[in-house]
Amino acid sequence: MASSTEATAPAPPAQVDRHSAQRNLYAQYRRVRQQSDRISEPLTPEDCVVQSMPDASPVRWHLAHTTWFFETFVLKQVIEDYQPVDPAFEYLFNSYYNQVGKQFPRPRRGLLSRPGLQDVKQYRQAIDGRIEELLTGESQLDEGLLQVLELGLHHEQQHQELILTDVKHMLSCNPCWPAYHLPATKEHEAPAELSWITGPEGVRSMGYAGNDFAYDNEGPVHEVLLQLHELASRLITNGEYLEFVEAGGYRQPQHWLSLGWNTVGEQEWNAPLYWHQVDGQWCEFTLAGLEPLDLAAPVCHVSFFEADAYARWRGVRLPTEAEWEQAASARDVEQDGNFVESGLYHPMPARSSAGMQQLFGDVWEWTSSPYTPYPGYRPPAGAIGEYNGKFMCNQYVLRGGSCATSESHIRPTYRNFFPPDARWQFTGIRLAR
Amino acid sequence: MASSTEATAPAPPAQVDRHSAQRNLYAQYRRVRQQSDRISEPLTPEDCVVQSMPDASPVRWHLAHTTWFFETFVLKQVIEDYQPVDPAFEYLFNSYYNQVGKQFPRPRRGLLSRPGLQDVKQYRQAIDGRIEELLTGESQLDEGLLQVLELGLHHEQQHQELILTDVKHMLSCNPCWPAYHLPATKEHEAPAELSWITGPEGVRSMGYAGNDFAYDNEGPVHEVLLQLHELASRLITNGEYLEFVEAGGYRQPQHWLSLGWNTVGEQEWNAPLYWHQVDGQWCEFTLAGLEPLDLAAPVCHVSFFEADAYARWRGVRLPTEAEWEQAASARDVEQDGNFVESGLYHPMPARSSAGMQQLFGDVWEWTSSPYTPYPGYRPPAGAIGEYNGKFMCNQYVLRGGSCATSESHIRPTYRNFFPPDARWQFTGIRLAR
Amino acid sequence: MASSTEATAPAPPAQVDRHSAQRNLYAQYRRVRQQSDRISEPLTPEDCVVQSMPDASPVRWHLAHTTWFFETFVLKQVIEDYQPVDPAFEYLFNSYYNQVGKQFPRPRRGLLSRPGLQDVKQYRQAIDGRIEELLTGESQLDEGLLQVLELGLHHEQQHQELILTDVKHMLSCNPCWPAYHLPATKEHEAPAELSWITGPEGVRSMGYAGNDFAYDNEGPVHEVLLQLHELASRLITNGEYLEFVEAGGYRQPQHWLSLGWNTVGEQEWNAPLYWHQVDGQWCEFTLAGLEPLDLAAPVCHVSFFEADAYARWRGVRLPTEAEWEQAASARDVEQDGNFVESGLYHPMPARSSAGMQQLFGDVWEWTSSPYTPYPGYRPPAGAIGEYNGKFMCNQYVLRGGSCATSESHIRPTYRNFFPPDARWQFTGIRLAR
Amino acid sequence: MASSTEATAPAPPAQVDRHSAQRNLYAQYRRVRQQSDRISEPLTPEDCVVQSMPDASPVRWHLAHTTWFFETFVLKQVIEDYQPVDPAFEYLFNSYYNQVGKQFPRPRRGLLSRPGLQDVKQYRQAIDGRIEELLTGESQLDEGLLQVLELGLHHEQQHQELILTDVKHMLSCNPCWPAYHLPATKEHEAPAELSWITGPEGVRSMGYAGNDFAYDNEGPVHEVLLQLHELASRLITNGEYLEFVEAGGYRQPQHWLSLGWNTVGEQEWNAPLYWHQVDGQWCEFTLAGLEPLDLAAPVCHVSFFEADAYARWRGVRLPTEAEWEQAASARDVEQDGNFVESGLYHPMPARSSAGMQQLFGDVWEWTSSPYTPYPGYRPPAGAIGEYNGKFMCNQYVLRGGSCATSESHIRPTYRNFFPPDARWQFTGIRLAR
Repeated sequence: MASSTEATAPAPPAQVDRHSAQRNLYAQYRRVRQQSDRISEPLTPEDCVVQSMPDASPVRWHLAHTTWFFETFVLKQVIEDYQPVDPAFEYLFNSYYNQVGKQFPRPRRGLLSRPGLQDVKQYRQAIDGRIEELLTGESQLDEGLLQVLELGLHHEQQHQELILTDVKHMLSCNPCWPAYHLPATKEHEAPAELSWITGPEGVRSMGYAGNDFAYDNEGPVHEVLLQLHELASRLITNGEYLEFVEAGGYRQPQHWLSLGWNTVGEQEWNAPLYWHQVDGQWCEFTLAGLEPLDLAAPVCHVSFFEADAYARWRGVRLPTEAEWEQAASARDVEQDGNFVESGLYHPMPARSSAGMQQLFGDVWEWTSSPYTPYPGYRPPAGAIGEYNGKFMCNQYVLRGGSCATSESHIRPTYRNFFPPDARWQFTGIRLAR
Repeated sequence: MASSTEATAPAPPAQVDRHSAQRNLYAQYRRVRQQSDRISEPLTPEDCVVQSMPDASPVRWHLAHTTWFFETFVLKQVIEDYQPVDPAFEYLFNSYYNQVGKQFPRPRRGLLSRPGLQDVKQYRQAIDGRIEELLTGESQLDEGLLQVLELGLHHEQQHQELILTDVKHMLSCNPCWPAYHLPATKEHEAPAELSWITGPEGVRSMGYAGNDFAYDNEGPVHEVLLQLHELASRLITNGEYLEFVEAGGYRQPQHWLSLGWNTVGEQEWNAPLYWHQVDGQWCEFTLAGLEPLDLAAPVCHVSFFEADAYARWRGVRLPTEAEWEQAASARDVEQDGNFVESGLYHPMPARSSAGMQQLFGDVWEWTSSPYTPYPGYRPPAGAIGEYNGKFMCNQYVLRGGSCATSESHIRPTYRNFFPPDARWQFTGIRLAR
Repeated sequence: MASSTEATAPAPPAQVDRHSAQRNLYAQYRRVRQQSDRISEPLTPEDCVVQSMPDASPVRWHLAHTTWFFETFVLKQVIEDYQPVDPAFEYLFNSYYNQVGKQFPRPRRGLLSRPGLQDVKQYRQAIDGRIEELLTGESQLDEGLLQVLELGLHHEQQHQELILTDVKHMLSCNPCWPAYHLPATKEHEAPAELSWITGPEGVRSMGYAGNDFAYDNEGPVHEVLLQLHELASRLITNGEYLEFVEAGGYRQPQHWLSLGWNTVGEQEWNAPLYWHQVDGQWCEFTLAGLEPLDLAAPVCHVSFFEADAYARWRGVRLPTEAEWEQAASARDVEQDGNFVESGLYHPMPARSSAGMQQLFGDVWEWTSSPYTPYPGYRPPAGAIGEYNGKFMCNQYVLRGGSCATSESHIRPTYRNFFPPDARWQFTGIRLAR
Repeated sequence: MASSTEATAPAPPAQVDRHSAQRNLYAQYRRVRQQSDRISEPLTPEDCVVQSMPDASPVRWHLAHTTWFFETFVLKQVIEDYQPVDPAFEYLFNSYYNQVGKQFPRPRRGLLSRPGLQDVKQYRQAIDGRIEELLTGESQLDEGLLQVLELGLHHEQQHQELILTDVKHMLSCNPCWPAYHLPATKEHEAPAELSWITGPEGVRSMGYAGNDFAYDNEGPVHEVLLQLHELASRLITNGEYLEFVEAGGYRQPQHWLSLGWNTVGEQEWNAPLYWHQVDGQWCEFTLAGLEPLDLAAPVCHVSFFEADAYARWRGVRLPTEAEWEQAASARDVEQDGNFVESGLYHPMPARSSAGMQQLFGDVWEWTSSPYTPYPGYRPPAGAIGEYNGKFMCNQYVLRGGSCATSESHIRPTYRNFFPPDARWQFTGIRLAR
């Protein structure tokens, strides 16, 4: 990001700098907001209504909620006597910020047919106009406010990923297997054999240390003690995971955590979320519809329970988040990582046989680390403090981003987190030992 | 209906008669199908997606299912090598006909964003075109097939009523109280005092005896033994029901059936379904949005449990369906009954002080009669036989139609039925003693 | 009962009569109370704790609740400044009498380990002592009070039957199949072919018309209109029902009411409640443990749904309660009926080939009649009025008593009632057409 | 334990040593088994039946399951052609060992009235007899087998604690508040002010390093990196926690983890599990019945969610398990710790004002550490390997034992674990910062 580069340049006069930062931020704002429009473009108004499970939200809600964030935490704070676009939106589009007010119950979001998709688009345009005025006008905005605005952009990127995963889940409930986009038709060769790469041992530093944006949960920087370990050079493929399935892995309790085994029974799991056997052949529901299972591609839509059971079945384990971060910290977020910008919306096979691959993009990688605060962590004061800290319970950390993540959203220190039974995100497996 | 008039005219040559009957039926077909379009017209595509509870269905589903009925039970039966509009619809839009095939699970109808509203409209047009060909062509159709087609029209009228009640329920889940149509603004005077009208005693005939269409459950004609009784001259008003509410009726178990009292507790009932207290004033959610409670209008959206408890609180009872039918059989379905054709979509106060009023239209009237087969009743053979008989358990009979019913749909012998806790239909109270 | 005989005798001086009635009632009291002890005798303290489902109650609760009835509705009413045996019992052992006070929640009765079985026995003895004083003392008791006391005895007989059915259900949850009593070991021959016996047609009288005890729901006497009909001469046997099972009856929706078919699926029914296939052979859990299925004995522990589906499969129907009562009214409750006094605790095959058999005892016979009030029925005032009327919803009438019923408890007009999915009572099938 | 002392003594001839070890183990066996009898002694047969929630088990089940452990993992392994006491017990009393066979479903344990308490006692005696033969006989047992037997004793001590907590929960469901033992009647003075004691910083060793018994989850010994920190000198008292309650802590979302706040709402928590307000006074249900809340005693029966929220409200945090273990490793398990041997069955106020107190006994102390495997941990092979590892998900570590724990059961490295919403154990709060 621009401000990072500037930070190392000789300090310009403060006023000029602030104006320039505002203009840069506005350019970023437009890019991020347009990306939301872009991924929503293939969707019908009807597609934007359905909430296919309590964990998912209707697309219209995502589009409105991310807008509500800017209205609530930026516009309302800075504009005197602010007139909201619609007073009802304060209630309808608050997700979980108790300090801002009551929330329309999450599992009931799919009951709302209004405001409709056009209304939500107008809401977005109205707020975009006000933000434009604010950022491109004469006045210099408070540093804290600019930080919240930047937070809002990262927040919107997170919801862009959720739009794709929630739409995928919604379409998967339809027995006609509708497609979100046209299928890519290339065939893939099996990737090279998985190799083991030794990681560093001893006391190392961990957490975000830069000057750019990072979430509160990526800090404070602190020291961790690493044991001797090795990481797999690439992700586990569908073909490798299929061996576990066909060896009876879903019927053998010894591989599973106790809660995982309960879940296997209750949810009647016998394969990853979107795998289906059609006329004896394994297929996978994708955003391009139902496709034959690509054995070379990374396994995807597995829960922590499945990732852990697979590792145990192979006699190894999942990496800790500290181990993962050490491996990743040496690398740039790869230019050729398979992020949402590729337009593939699906993980792709490893392309090389040398060195560590696929750390970024493709699928979020489950770690063995419960999602806990780093030593000394304190959530920020106020409603913004409800962003991360209060979810640090019964979730596991995932790293690296996926094919539904924006490349600009990811850092080596980035911590994503989901409960151990979640499967509708693009989640996969890297082994450690 | 036309065929009824013809039945009393001198019999024409059979072939001419059949052709004329087909043309009449086609005219009726167009009228009924256009009515579905008319009531869907105010709805957005988003409105047509939501399923707000398992008992309700999305509007798109109603529009497609009624069309599926004609495709499945008429077109497929008569056209050789019939090519369905879409093979998936056979599964998606089957409601509960086990003999026709598997059904997409009812509680999941709201998960389908596709086919969209436009697709469903095209489906309707495609089937309408094929039906037009069939009915206006040269060939004479089998009598049984014409009966099934007529059944399909009455079936569609039932779903038209459900569209309105399901939309009302869906909109009521929205804290913004959206309106389906513009409010009517007249003020109403309180109706005349309720009087008691003595009904006939002894053995009487019951059930449908004419030559027009009637459902299987309205027959066979049979004799019933009536006790001495009186019926109330009009429906119970909101004002009268409010006395029960304010006297603590919802907190006093002695008025309630045991199951009703459980339901009051579990559902936290304290007034009819769409009543709300706003700033100390009672309001009612209507298809025109939230309105002040009209004390003169009939109470509406009460369950059998509430109707029964109210009657008990007043020391009287609900009518049996035999008593109701005797009172109604003497009368034409009133020309001025408040049916869906009035465009009011809400029950209206009784307009006269003399004689029996409001038997037809306004609200369905709960009877004390469990929904059971008449003596000698047998459901028809085949899938059509799944229409009525299999629901004869744990439901109560309602009579007379409502402000959401088509006038042409109702007869004195017409039997509607719902479980005793159902409240989302336009259901009200007539007393007996 | 004594008072019935006296009613036809010349009227004695009122005072003597009253004293004699009290003494007779006390004799009856002792017989009924001792029967509760007798059937509880084979049970361990542990057996008397478990509540195996919300519909069932622990034996200790039944023993205490029937005692509570006498304490609450007799002793407290007549003894000035009555000191309860334990004030907590008023709350713990109230079943559903809202007018007497709050109730310990029914589904939690199995959570109470105390008072223990000995404590409950002492409670019974304490109340028995006070009742003895009351009835055998000098004072003449109010006629209404004697009626309530008599009601309490019939109430206790009902709970004696529930003790047996609840114990049977509880033991059936134990994979070791424990027995309540020793098995009877006779072998049975198949009964004679079922024949059809014509019942009366036209207007007939129905309901209890005598001077002895009867429940409020057996009256008022009123006229009913009977259609021409025939009743089966005996109950359906296990062998006959097995044909339905083996013909796939539990997998074919066309025989079932819609709610019944849902229940078959949700509860995974594939045979009557206590049938089990062990090594390919059909067995039945009985109060004597697991036994090979006796094909000659009446089928038992079927729900209304199953009884109705079986009748439909055979092309016939269940009797109405009016038809059943006409057949039964001509007969004494048979001397050789298989009631609880036989000590068999299981239904037995029909013993004769001539005429109507098994109307009384063996199994309760499902009728097609929903449980509704007779015309003119009003529940008694006060808490006693909560006994029957408030349950008149979503239940079906059963007639004739079972092998777990006391012979002295049954009359031709006796109306039992259970929801259509209940199976843990001794319930069976008589056909009609 | 004996073997520990011996380990430092000059090595005796192996054979003698083994015999002596067997004799010592048998003495230990008798002590532990007798303790189970002792704590069950105040219970009635009825008390030993109830399962008051799915997490709890009936006392009879605990007594039988601990016995089953010895039968299954010791006797069956070593005795040829072993004849089980009752073949059904293998199924009934298996808790969760999938590798040993199927298990009777845990939530249904309360449905079993048989085998009764006497039967279970006989089962215990039978197994005790066979173990006595085995250990006191001539033959020298395999070292691995002795280890399993020792594991069985620690396993039984765990269930002894569960007997007390499950009985407490069961009695708490009884509105009569029955007591398990007679109340202790001393009054307590408030403890000294809480002070903060600095812990060690840097790389430290953690995990069990001795030669005595320890669970697999206490190893391997490994290094951890500690931050600078302080621990509170004593446990939080009821009085201190009451301030949180009265300040509205249960109504303010900002103190709570998101899952915790959901739980507060769903479970309607407004105080620790057994606190009740009676006539405006706070009371606490104890194993001695309902008692006025002792403000000086440690708060007890709080969940992790409550412990965490309380710490947050005070601006501090809970200790990590590494911090706790460092503090504890310097100390013997205190001679005067309030363990089950005290017979108080309730936590007691801190008795001194100097130094670290109450680390052992009184209440289990919630740490902030999710229950995860130590680096390099692998569960043992076979069924015994199902003991600890498979539960390492969505649970938090607790340390130090409670007033319901045997003193001989606890070590500084001992790791207990429960889900964050569990409250029925004796769990309390020590703060850190």
